[in-house]
Amino acid sequence: MTKRRLVVAAAQLGPIGRSESRAQVVRRLLALLREAHGRGAEFVVFPELALTTFFPRWHLTDPDEVNGFFEAAIPGPETQVLFDEAQRLAVGFYLGYAERAEEGGAIHRYNSAILVDRSGTVLGKYRKVHLPGHAAPQPGRDAQHLEKFYFEPGNLGFPVWRTMGTVIGMCICNDRRWPETYRVMALQGAEMIVLGYNTPDDHTGVFEFDSLTGFHHQLACQAGAYQNSTWVVATAKAGLEEGSRLIGQSLIVAPSGQIVAMSTSTDDEVIVHGCDLDMAAIYRRTIFDFARHREPEAYRLIVERKGPVPPAEA
Amino acid sequence: MTKRRLVVAAAQLGPIGRSESRAQVVRRLLALLREAHGRGAEFVVFPELALTTFFPRWHLTDPDEVNGFFEAAIPGPETQVLFDEAQRLAVGFYLGYAERAEEGGAIHRYNSAILVDRSGTVLGKYRKVHLPGHAAPQPGRDAQHLEKFYFEPGNLGFPVWRTMGTVIGMCICNDRRWPETYRVMALQGAEMIVLGYNTPDDHTGVFEFDSLTGFHHQLACQAGAYQNSTWVVATAKAGLEEGSRLIGQSLIVAPSGQIVAMSTSTDDEVIVHGCDLDMAAIYRRTIFDFARHREPEAYRLIVERKGPVPPAEA
Repeated sequence: MTKRRLVVAAAQLGPIGRSESRAQVVRRLLALLREAHGRGAEFVVFPELALTTFFPRWHLTDPDEVNGFFEAAIPGPETQVLFDEAQRLAVGFYLGYAERAEEGGAIHRYNSAILVDRSGTVLGKYRKVHLPGHAAPQPGRDAQHLEKFYFEPGNLGFPVWRTMGTVIGMCICNDRRWPETYRVMALQGAEMIVLGYNTPDDHTGVFEFDSLTGFHHQLACQAGAYQNSTWVVATAKAGLEEGSRLIGQSLIVAPSGQIVAMSTSTDDEVIVHGCDLDMAAIYRRTIFDFARHREPEAYRLIVERKGPVPPAEA
Repeated sequence: MTKRRLVVAAAQLGPIGRSESRAQVVRRLLALLREAHGRGAEFVVFPELALTTFFPRWHLTDPDEVNGFFEAAIPGPETQVLFDEAQRLAVGFYLGYAERAEEGGAIHRYNSAILVDRSGTVLGKYRKVHLPGHAAPQPGRDAQHLEKFYFEPGNLGFPVWRTMGTVIGMCICNDRRWPETYRVMALQGAEMIVLGYNTPDDHTGVFEFDSLTGFHHQLACQAGAYQNSTWVVATAKAGLEEGSRLIGQSLIVAPSGQIVAMSTSTDDEVIVHGCDLDMAAIYRRTIFDFARHREPEAYRLIVERKGPVPPAEA
């Protein structure tokens, strides 16, 4: 039997300045897309909020400036060229962006990603479920982390799509730290989970833990891959961006949990791997045969409780 | 404020022969207990099925022989001395054993562990939820893995206990590979999760994955600790036991995911660490503040579905 194989690229972006225009950013995305295609990639994973600087580090109050970071339509006038070129090259892609949506007569804002297949068809959208940070500015921080201020939590769950010869699920940045994210997609047969991230190296604000940011990023992606028998592709926006230090370490992780490719810069960079989509099958029929081994009745607290409830003090 | 601190030992056992008696094994456990106490340990974690050889590697059909591997009572006549000595030394402990229980007029068998506090009080019991392997012998395997033949899945969930100045939860061996295990205990405020294991280095039967057994063990324990802000103590039965190669690598893992102690032999060996119980608080009020960041509505499939249901083929 021929191996099922998908050649995947993580197309990492270096920093994007606050004043950098969509046109400038899209030119960089096009260059990464063409490099990935030239190296055989059939599917390219771009970062989270890939069209602008990571604006949730500021508490912005000018509505026009805020709106300027959001897309009212995707593809839109400035991004259509990326969709056109991907279609011409027959390369599918994942793209993270800030979404401004009109739903039920009101404006809603999400941290979103879109999945496009090799024919150029937009298959669907994911809206970030696990928004980190705060809903209001915190005193004493060099950089804010105001995702809960700018965005609502995603209302689309964790859907997956059968496409490009496999089953692909999407998530975004902080979602990768939560084991529920991978599990919900694996329970829908996901064989590949893709995500973009912007991870500053001071994300908890406590030095002794923040110094482990790279380790934690790898640990979460590797555990997610291993425990769910999926490929994981994680793409950074990286580098020194407007005074914030964003880690690189874009990763392609095999269902064994092994890192098979990792970026080495914090600039625009493409990494590529030919993923054996049948590799997961070995685990899925042994140690991680969910249908034989999972015990959902014992897991009920996971959905019945949001925060912890410790036992009473004696 | 004084730091809350608990000095913990993982008391690893080397191989136990098929013919080794309870009295012989308990003598080894006593030696490990005294060594751990001498090195300051207040709480000792012994392995899974710590009183006998790992008998699920064989398909045994003689009822007397099978019963000989199970405890009808714990403490029992041969194990009472361990409980007495721990009480005298004021050391709490976790001990894994094969449990033969009479419930509702019938005999049930579980892969169990017991938690004993520093005063000698038996606080409670855990019965292994995730039984790996098979319910019937598999052709072509050097060693069987018949936990589903000998044991029923645990029916006590994943309880936790407030004891020894912290909140402790228990699990056993294969449970550590399943993120639900840690999560259910963390949602009850667990600050320390302890487990014993017997992990043969051919546990999936596929060489290219089995060669990663040590890596997977570490990855699962480190991710469980990090993603749930808990200490994890994992104790091996190790070494060449009746032709089976059991990995060592007993671990103490901090809430940061960092391994702070690891055994280096596959023989009887004690590792000790003074665990800062407040270390987890840093994460629990930032990136892993469950009450602020978890989104249980998005996790429903975890309890609604046992095995995966992929999207329909086009």
